[in-house]
Amino acid sequence: MFQVNENYLKLPGSYLFSTIAKKVNAYEKANPDKRIIRLGIGDVTQPLVPAIIRAMHEAVDEMGNAESFRGYAPDLGYGFLREKIAQKDYRARGCDISADEIFISDGAKSDCGNIQEIFSQDCRIAVCDPVYPVYVDSNVMAGRCGDYDKVRGLWSNVIYMPCTAENDFVPELPRETPDLIYLCVPNNPTGTALTRQQLKVWVDYANKTGAVILYDAAYEAYIAQEEVPHSIFEIQGARTCAIEFRSFSKNAGFTGVRLGFTVIPKDLKSGDVAVHGLWARRHGTKFNGAPYIVQKAAMAVYSDEGKAQLKGQVAYYMKNAKVIYEGLKKAGYQVYGGVNAPYIWLKTPDGMSSWDFFDWLLEHANVVGTPGSGFGPSGEGYFRLTAFGTYENTAEAMERIRESREGF
Amino acid sequence: MFQVNENYLKLPGSYLFSTIAKKVNAYEKANPDKRIIRLGIGDVTQPLVPAIIRAMHEAVDEMGNAESFRGYAPDLGYGFLREKIAQKDYRARGCDISADEIFISDGAKSDCGNIQEIFSQDCRIAVCDPVYPVYVDSNVMAGRCGDYDKVRGLWSNVIYMPCTAENDFVPELPRETPDLIYLCVPNNPTGTALTRQQLKVWVDYANKTGAVILYDAAYEAYIAQEEVPHSIFEIQGARTCAIEFRSFSKNAGFTGVRLGFTVIPKDLKSGDVAVHGLWARRHGTKFNGAPYIVQKAAMAVYSDEGKAQLKGQVAYYMKNAKVIYEGLKKAGYQVYGGVNAPYIWLKTPDGMSSWDFFDWLLEHANVVGTPGSGFGPSGEGYFRLTAFGTYENTAEAMERIRESREGF
Repeated sequence: MFQVNENYLKLPGSYLFSTIAKKVNAYEKANPDKRIIRLGIGDVTQPLVPAIIRAMHEAVDEMGNAESFRGYAPDLGYGFLREKIAQKDYRARGCDISADEIFISDGAKSDCGNIQEIFSQDCRIAVCDPVYPVYVDSNVMAGRCGDYDKVRGLWSNVIYMPCTAENDFVPELPRETPDLIYLCVPNNPTGTALTRQQLKVWVDYANKTGAVILYDAAYEAYIAQEEVPHSIFEIQGARTCAIEFRSFSKNAGFTGVRLGFTVIPKDLKSGDVAVHGLWARRHGTKFNGAPYIVQKAAMAVYSDEGKAQLKGQVAYYMKNAKVIYEGLKKAGYQVYGGVNAPYIWLKTPDGMSSWDFFDWLLEHANVVGTPGSGFGPSGEGYFRLTAFGTYENTAEAMERIRESREGF
Repeated sequence: MFQVNENYLKLPGSYLFSTIAKKVNAYEKANPDKRIIRLGIGDVTQPLVPAIIRAMHEAVDEMGNAESFRGYAPDLGYGFLREKIAQKDYRARGCDISADEIFISDGAKSDCGNIQEIFSQDCRIAVCDPVYPVYVDSNVMAGRCGDYDKVRGLWSNVIYMPCTAENDFVPELPRETPDLIYLCVPNNPTGTALTRQQLKVWVDYANKTGAVILYDAAYEAYIAQEEVPHSIFEIQGARTCAIEFRSFSKNAGFTGVRLGFTVIPKDLKSGDVAVHGLWARRHGTKFNGAPYIVQKAAMAVYSDEGKAQLKGQVAYYMKNAKVIYEGLKKAGYQVYGGVNAPYIWLKTPDGMSSWDFFDWLLEHANVVGTPGSGFGPSGEGYFRLTAFGTYENTAEAMERIRESREGF
């Protein structure tokens, strides 16, 4: 008689975005005259740039001709793309990363969720709080997190690193020693980035304790400040303690195209065993390569034309971030993030809970955001807005928020 | 100090196709004048048909316009495609399957590899021998297979169902009771199909013992005989014991495009727990949807124009299968498969080992196939050829094999 994986049953419902959708739908139904502006979900709104569209059309045509048709892609990615990434994203920044240390995938979410699988069942994880839910949930499924305390919203066997205004949202070294440390920089949801100096502390700590840093750099393209590294491999010592996840979702609008990659240096070892080989084996067994068309589209991201067009797209969203940041400030809010990230994190006014503020903002400004408590208990009393809307909607949302605050 | 998943270290090297590649490269280097014909790997060679190419171009254009741009796809697939599949692949064949029981993914290999994860660690698996390696390897990684016996080529905690000429390559009900039964029909590598009557025996057995049948129907499009069902859900009782995997790789040439789906009926339960919900949770946590462009391309597979074009493509490959089947017969080989599947399975002559025959065929006919022993110990003494080459190469390969046999 078959049995299911009992760990799945421990997961509390993943209700954050579905609860939001339900509340918004109910409000819309009751108020059909109101135009709601959504600054909640981290999905992009700008179309793919012309250089990418052209590359995709060309690749589609190649697939339609017998001479240029491509079947199975290499499991780990086409050499042309792995080499381009190694050169443009790493060697150009002085990082010692080679093409065969880059694993192309269908996106950073898959990789962030699957990576835990190549580590021992006994590994203990550390995460920032608040945090992107995939890191913890994927480890719960694997049975690493212990039991869930519904009241506190915490797992018994997870090491939490609270990130609040008190520590400028910068995680502190944990008191208990973890084996796997998830860091998302620039951070989702708080928008916080780490300087080279701050990240060096983590690399040294991981090398000293024998931990692995699982470094999610999906928002790298939004880094504006010189002192913030774009890759953990800019930091001396990272080759022996870090894995980096990258995405084309936010720098090139690939949320619905699907492409990402993971960097595993060959120097990352447990005894004699290179982690690199384990991930290669996982890719070869449970994945069958990313589409040729999509990998060709990614090449356009690195062309001169593509780069120029995407620079404009990132600037568009970062202009929104500035509008939100300054609009909220003007309206009297305490605001964080938005400088090196497309996320703006704000303190709810007058000690309101995150969900109370959600309801209040929906009602009084017809603007949808994300309650901070949805990302973890230390997110309580905070709220996330994203810069991925259109400029017009973003500017209008800020106008409404300013007016609603006056009537608060 | 982090540790790796020790189960990965138990896996013997996956050397089958890399060993083949090495041998072929060495032979080519030593014999630069010989033209080698590859009938080894199950990858398609015909380009995408015009209806699919047009659909892809249209979808690419949609992604380039702000009004029609699509960001994140629904995790479980676009409604338009799930509904189309439910209608065309299931309800049209009298199967009681609804759109929300269909989970769109990036391919059947990912799904076949990941499915074990939602079941208990204690589940015991049964597989045919020979078999597609992903079923066993993914369970080894999860720690379900016990230890590997290098001499016998078997895992201590796996139930093997030998499929040889003696039982017409039809697996017999196992003596020990499994929890998860992998069946690939039509079979890779033997090309065997099961009739409705034969499959009913398995469905009844699974319902009686409380096992789940993991039914890999990736080669469904090649079924030619009326008595062979295209889906396990054509069999009464399958809704409470079966999961089905489907692919667009072999019916539409999507090996390098990547799309598949898994069907989990809501009636498949362990106690009160529906397996359906667990897989939905996995998709939502570790996957982020298949590309919009690819899902639109799949819609063209079901259009009248697409269907007609793809019928021609399958017929092209099945003509190759016939050429191989009859060519081998004429050359004096014992031949199996090739009727409901694009794979032809042959007995090596004079008790030669699979690898010896590989070497002999490469040397004497300059034709590359796959040694049966690479799929499991019961594949020893057999050899696989695929119908996915071009017609010209396939016909020439048979001519060469006939001539080489004369000199055997």
